[in-house]
Amino acid sequence: MSRILRLNMTDNSFDWEAELAAYAGLGGRGLSSRIIRHEVPPTCHPLSAANKLILAPGLLTGTAAANSGRISVGGKSPLTGTIKESNAGGLVSRKLARLGIRAIIVEGQPAARNFSVVRLSQEGVEFLPAAEYVGRGNYDTMAQLRANFGEHVGMMSIGPAGEKRLAAASIQFGDQQGRPSRAAGRGGLGALMGSKGLKALVVDERGTPPQLPMADPEKFKAAARQWAHLLVNHPVSGQALPTYGTAVLINIVNDAGALPTQNFRRGQFEGAVDLSGEKMVELIKQRGGKTKEGCHPGCVIQCSQTYHDASGKYLTSGFEYESIWALGAHTTIRELDYIAQLDRLCDDLGLDTIETGVALGVMMEGGLIAWGDGPAAIDMVKKVARDDPWGLILGNGSAYVGQALGVSRVPVVKGQGLPAYDPRAEKGIGLTYATSPMGGDHTAGYTVATNILGCGGKTDPLQKAGQIELSRNLQVATAAIDCTGICLFTAFAVLDNPDALPCIVDMINARYGLGLRADDIVALGQQVLQDERQFNRDAGFTPAHDRLPEFFKEKLAPHNVTWDFTDAEIDQVFKGI
Amino acid sequence: MSRILRLNMTDNSFDWEAELAAYAGLGGRGLSSRIIRHEVPPTCHPLSAANKLILAPGLLTGTAAANSGRISVGGKSPLTGTIKESNAGGLVSRKLARLGIRAIIVEGQPAARNFSVVRLSQEGVEFLPAAEYVGRGNYDTMAQLRANFGEHVGMMSIGPAGEKRLAAASIQFGDQQGRPSRAAGRGGLGALMGSKGLKALVVDERGTPPQLPMADPEKFKAAARQWAHLLVNHPVSGQALPTYGTAVLINIVNDAGALPTQNFRRGQFEGAVDLSGEKMVELIKQRGGKTKEGCHPGCVIQCSQTYHDASGKYLTSGFEYESIWALGAHTTIRELDYIAQLDRLCDDLGLDTIETGVALGVMMEGGLIAWGDGPAAIDMVKKVARDDPWGLILGNGSAYVGQALGVSRVPVVKGQGLPAYDPRAEKGIGLTYATSPMGGDHTAGYTVATNILGCGGKTDPLQKAGQIELSRNLQVATAAIDCTGICLFTAFAVLDNPDALPCIVDMINARYGLGLRADDIVALGQQVLQDERQFNRDAGFTPAHDRLPEFFKEKLAPHNVTWDFTDAEIDQVFKGI
Repeated sequence: MSRILRLNMTDNSFDWEAELAAYAGLGGRGLSSRIIRHEVPPTCHPLSAANKLILAPGLLTGTAAANSGRISVGGKSPLTGTIKESNAGGLVSRKLARLGIRAIIVEGQPAARNFSVVRLSQEGVEFLPAAEYVGRGNYDTMAQLRANFGEHVGMMSIGPAGEKRLAAASIQFGDQQGRPSRAAGRGGLGALMGSKGLKALVVDERGTPPQLPMADPEKFKAAARQWAHLLVNHPVSGQALPTYGTAVLINIVNDAGALPTQNFRRGQFEGAVDLSGEKMVELIKQRGGKTKEGCHPGCVIQCSQTYHDASGKYLTSGFEYESIWALGAHTTIRELDYIAQLDRLCDDLGLDTIETGVALGVMMEGGLIAWGDGPAAIDMVKKVARDDPWGLILGNGSAYVGQALGVSRVPVVKGQGLPAYDPRAEKGIGLTYATSPMGGDHTAGYTVATNILGCGGKTDPLQKAGQIELSRNLQVATAAIDCTGICLFTAFAVLDNPDALPCIVDMINARYGLGLRADDIVALGQQVLQDERQFNRDAGFTPAHDRLPEFFKEKLAPHNVTWDFTDAEIDQVFKGI
Repeated sequence: MSRILRLNMTDNSFDWEAELAAYAGLGGRGLSSRIIRHEVPPTCHPLSAANKLILAPGLLTGTAAANSGRISVGGKSPLTGTIKESNAGGLVSRKLARLGIRAIIVEGQPAARNFSVVRLSQEGVEFLPAAEYVGRGNYDTMAQLRANFGEHVGMMSIGPAGEKRLAAASIQFGDQQGRPSRAAGRGGLGALMGSKGLKALVVDERGTPPQLPMADPEKFKAAARQWAHLLVNHPVSGQALPTYGTAVLINIVNDAGALPTQNFRRGQFEGAVDLSGEKMVELIKQRGGKTKEGCHPGCVIQCSQTYHDASGKYLTSGFEYESIWALGAHTTIRELDYIAQLDRLCDDLGLDTIETGVALGVMMEGGLIAWGDGPAAIDMVKKVARDDPWGLILGNGSAYVGQALGVSRVPVVKGQGLPAYDPRAEKGIGLTYATSPMGGDHTAGYTVATNILGCGGKTDPLQKAGQIELSRNLQVATAAIDCTGICLFTAFAVLDNPDALPCIVDMINARYGLGLRADDIVALGQQVLQDERQFNRDAGFTPAHDRLPEFFKEKLAPHNVTWDFTDAEIDQVFKGI
């Protein structure tokens, strides 16, 4: 029987709730966003007791469906003030599903800044003192959690950034090796977790049945087999990502002239080749890391890796394109080892790599750090763990840094740092940045798939034609996928293969004994966006917030393109939704 | 002939413009808000070249009308993101009017962070290098400006806070003694001035005719005589303010249980008597300062003063109730001399005293400074002038400090620190805080006049009855008064004396040869609010922003009152406007 668990952090109590009608049939992002819309006062301060942190596995999480182990983490964002769903891998989601937990709602707030660790298992819910973990980074914290609770547990934790409630703070999730390499990075949900006094969650599913209840096991098995087959046979999920990780995009996006360089001044980085997936793989092979890993069991894409330093010692993993871009091309740091150190620091201190990289670039814009100075950037990020006000400034993100230094060239939408695709040379993603209920975000409607990778058709990223529909359709599709617990990197195959969506529908139907059709999945995506947009409207967001910063009117080399969507055109993205 | 002067700070050029139709007949706040609505893109970054800084004397400024020397300073606020009018005294307004300048529009932005001083006189407009002033406080800057340009000039300048573009930065105006004691404090307009590269404006009106053109000199003279008479015969403007300054309110508001103490935890401060106007006057008399002064010639109220330290040396002037509250009761600092030092530092560094005091209280809330620790607060404010990141944090105001320290108990509306009246024990002012287009502000609709001082009738500040209408009517009336250049402290007499408004109308008619009636003045106030609210809507503000922080649901001693207006009630304030 699946239930919702409420953790009350005011008095360290908990409560199990059977399914509420308003939350029926929902999972993942659909469930987290619905709970937020129903239970969080839209105008509350994100760090107050009234906000809630939601953890929700997807509808297919815990099953044998390939790549279904993602978790939706939600709340009112301390960074943007909007609703937020941040999606992560790791082991927690799968283990929660195995324990029959559809969602955890973390609510209330301790009176003082005390921290707890919560352990979930078949025996129940335990609130444990967190003194031995507080102040420590996520690497240390997770090593200690494994020492205390066993190597098999699923873990999520915050680092010093989340403890300090900084708006760029992430929640890190342990991967299959127990390293905090997976992140619910965007939107400062680590600060929300910190404000709840929750240092870490440990999930131990031992003793649960080997399979989740299944309405039609044979049908599920057939669909799941086809699903895995689809994924491994697509060139992106079957070849590019397993071979080079997401960093395969560095050369591709640079070639497209859409790799934002030096705080969005140019679309190509002269040092791109040194940051590329190809270069990373070459170094990993020389140094003895690992070029492919999955963030959770059942992943057939294996886009992660283990990256060693020059001496062959473990440095980081989950070394993503977005992180390499933000900490690299954006700041013009061109040494991959410095970037790997920064990535490791972000995972350890509990900082979103994108927000931190963008913020470092704004510090360079303001003259505080020299462009491209890797060691200075590393020193700056280390301050987040110390009692250093520069660390507080950096850890609050790009817009906050801009305000400290009086910089107006700040690449944010709704206060969130923009990711790794210049909206002038990839116009569809600009629409997603502008209009996503999440603030400046790429995953919410990843038009790059079609514009640059040619999945699901081909559009010209430099032209406006077709982009409004593309962003709209992908935002709907993504909202639906994020309900299932399926990894977004399956989308390439879904876009190119007409059998893929029916296959997902079959798995959901077989799991729950439903009769959904493909249209229902589209409707689900729309409904999620409706919930999210309603929350945002109630929180005071209007079309005036769906705008890119003014400086995107400047021409971007090499294509000399500008951001030329009118306000009226931008406002068409959500037409009919 | 009166004209509008445009200063282009991109290339240090200027342009005179005859009256534009859209700006016809407007002065002061009505003119500054209209220009902003017409010329500033609502979603622009406040520190970008697209924003504009407006200076506008009022319709009666420069005449012999008592207390008509105020100036409206406007722009898109770097603190709140809303439209902003900040109203100040001093000599600049009067001298601009004498030069026939209806408004100055400061636009553009220098490429590097260069600063200029602009000097206006009958000979024209001069852009001068500012190297000798940059980095210096307002006291030094104004002393040097007087040394360079003569003791008779009007001056406005920014200190280090404005140069650094910090969101709590003020613009200071020289008083009759050449001290920077008058401020356009609220909303961070000093940061806007800093972003324009304008360190100071010097106005020399020598050579202009002794009188402004007057359509009906005799009628004006009669009305002006009656006006001055009205003011000096009202107990507030004729007795209380000249005797004790605005600090007369400390005991009064404390007795009413509405003096916010220790970050709005209680409504009475045990140290109130030590901060009172009565105590201040006693010390001034002992130490040889001056108990009454006007901020501009023609002021018959004389609410300012010169406050000396214990050794009899000049310390500060324009030592206001709001400043003493923010730096005192709010922080629980109870030594008036520490508060005077803080006030002096704010004027010198160019910081809004209210925002700085509220922000210091939030630092105390976050445990960075001990409650009531005056010397620690003084040290902290001094950091604003240095290359110290704590100074950058403090100088960006209350909400910014809250975010640095992860504090959710932050008394702001639309990002602006709330002033010196607790909205639970003075419910009308809570409506003004919530709904004013300016963000959390008291002057925009000073219900205290009626609720606590009994001017214009008497309402019970603890009860909701009548408060919506009171806030609405006073916001309209204030918007109208702010068009005239008349000091808001005349409002007590205006509220109590039915002859006062016709008298103002007569002066305007006599000056310009118009046939306005009292109704037209009300309509003018409404129109100003319409302009301001339209700008805010276009900038993305909605009723969801017209809310007080959640913690005002807590009971406030001694009356054990809560903030109990519903959202729907709050949204009635601007009904029909």
